Amino acid sequence: MNRILIVGTGLIGASVGLALRAAGYEGEIFGTGPREETLKIAQEMKAIDSWAIGTDADELAKKSDVILLAGPVLTIQDWMQRLAPILGEHQLVTDVGSTKLLIAEQAKQLFNQPGRARFLPGHPMAGKESGGAAQAEATLFNNAMWLFCPITQEGSLEQDFRNWVSKLGTRTMDLDPAHHDELVAWLSHLPQMLATALSASLEERFGKDEKTRAELNAIGGRALREMTRLGASPYSMWRDIAITNAEPIADTLHALEQRIAHLRENLKTPILREEFEQANELRKPRP
Amino acid sequence: MNRILIVGTGLIGASVGLALRAAGYEGEIFGTGPREETLKIAQEMKAIDSWAIGTDADELAKKSDVILLAGPVLTIQDWMQRLAPILGEHQLVTDVGSTKLLIAEQAKQLFNQPGRARFLPGHPMAGKESGGAAQAEATLFNNAMWLFCPITQEGSLEQDFRNWVSKLGTRTMDLDPAHHDELVAWLSHLPQMLATALSASLEERFGKDEKTRAELNAIGGRALREMTRLGASPYSMWRDIAITNAEPIADTLHALEQRIAHLRENLKTPILREEFEQANELRKPRP
Repeated sequence: MNRILIVGTGLIGASVGLALRAAGYEGEIFGTGPREETLKIAQEMKAIDSWAIGTDADELAKKSDVILLAGPVLTIQDWMQRLAPILGEHQLVTDVGSTKLLIAEQAKQLFNQPGRARFLPGHPMAGKESGGAAQAEATLFNNAMWLFCPITQEGSLEQDFRNWVSKLGTRTMDLDPAHHDELVAWLSHLPQMLATALSASLEERFGKDEKTRAELNAIGGRALREMTRLGASPYSMWRDIAITNAEPIADTLHALEQRIAHLRENLKTPILREEFEQANELRKPRP
Repeated sequence: MNRILIVGTGLIGASVGLALRAAGYEGEIFGTGPREETLKIAQEMKAIDSWAIGTDADELAKKSDVILLAGPVLTIQDWMQRLAPILGEHQLVTDVGSTKLLIAEQAKQLFNQPGRARFLPGHPMAGKESGGAAQAEATLFNNAMWLFCPITQEGSLEQDFRNWVSKLGTRTMDLDPAHHDELVAWLSHLPQMLATALSASLEERFGKDEKTRAELNAIGGRALREMTRLGASPYSMWRDIAITNAEPIADTLHALEQRIAHLRENLKTPILREEFEQANELRKPRP
């Protein structure tokens, strides 16, 4: 991996550039993306060495060993369509998309075949409450989990890229794409949707005037702050996740609706004890 | 207030004793409760000066100016029944129960009438994940909100007790008992029940074997930890709250079920944006 192109130099993409440099990567780092402004910030931060935009980006892609697609899932899918015909067998495309099944399915159609580049679906589980190149950090992936969903036998470029990912301080794990999407539905998307639902409900109840909002602020404590922090997450970060992982997310939401209804129907019965005890088990240390 | 009896010297009761002393209270502090062991711990910590148990506790109650009922709501209600006939007009009973409507209703029956003691319903919003006298701290109420739900014109003993509560570093607010219960259903009980439902659902999904539990631990991040921390809350702390505030809690849970179903049905539609934007409003700074 002597040349890498980072497509989308927002928080994750620019952090990959910074982290590669911090880990001793001496090859070239190119950047592209939809907005010049973002690319300039990334270049000033030294997350990328140079950048191009529009059709000039195709030339950068053609001369890179690895192309890292960063950004929302639907944008990644657009880039896959655009790049597949112009890349060759000696190149690797990988991505950082939050959902993996649709990307893996599309990759099987477009890549990993004679004359086409290779594709390794990936998902670094790192982020911040607000995105953007200016928030990027070389340490963003320290101790973070970088998931991979390999869809084909891997070659030396994949090994090279994985080595660099490890040097960023990550832990890694390989998962089947559908299993990945079901796991992140439970462990990431469900908590987000719950916090959104709770925050929106509280806003409806307490947002109408200053008096009720003052009661919320005066009485709500740590528990409420924690359970609603994710309510501040922007739709722009979640739209593509909801669209591309709708079925697994819907399954977890439906399971939770039933669980909440069960609690509601048993507030005065000993079944409530069983629910609390099952919940208590989640964080208990194992022997 | 020259003599105060703290009934129930667990986390809250013992902390009140310690906090009063730290605030310069020089009167006597008596203790009583169901278990000798707890009272001994509270005495060793100097949260109480002396204690009695069983019928001897009645004598302590009779010679106290203020009787503070600490503990679960149903236990507080038992003590109200027991103490009402043996106390007199010159005495004030107050409590720290988490729900207020049933206690206020019972207080109207048993107190605040000729020959009977006065009653001031109260609710300090302070606590820790685990209870017990050994966890008590003089600083537990620093910056905490201590709610009151007065049910009658207040006299000098109420003023005296309120002054001491302010000296503990609290903020205070007066609320109608039914309004109190509806507010805490939204701001405290609903977040708890949600965390319990989420944790129990995750335990059902991931608790079955070591492999799936390892995936949970490897992939779950800060968002998941925050949204499930309250899942560790013990049933023993929540049983009486659920029983005595069942209807307001059920209303909030039902509203949330509908909200989650609405999200679930709109994962792929622009209505999801409206839900995120309404949620975003909750924590936005106001002009």
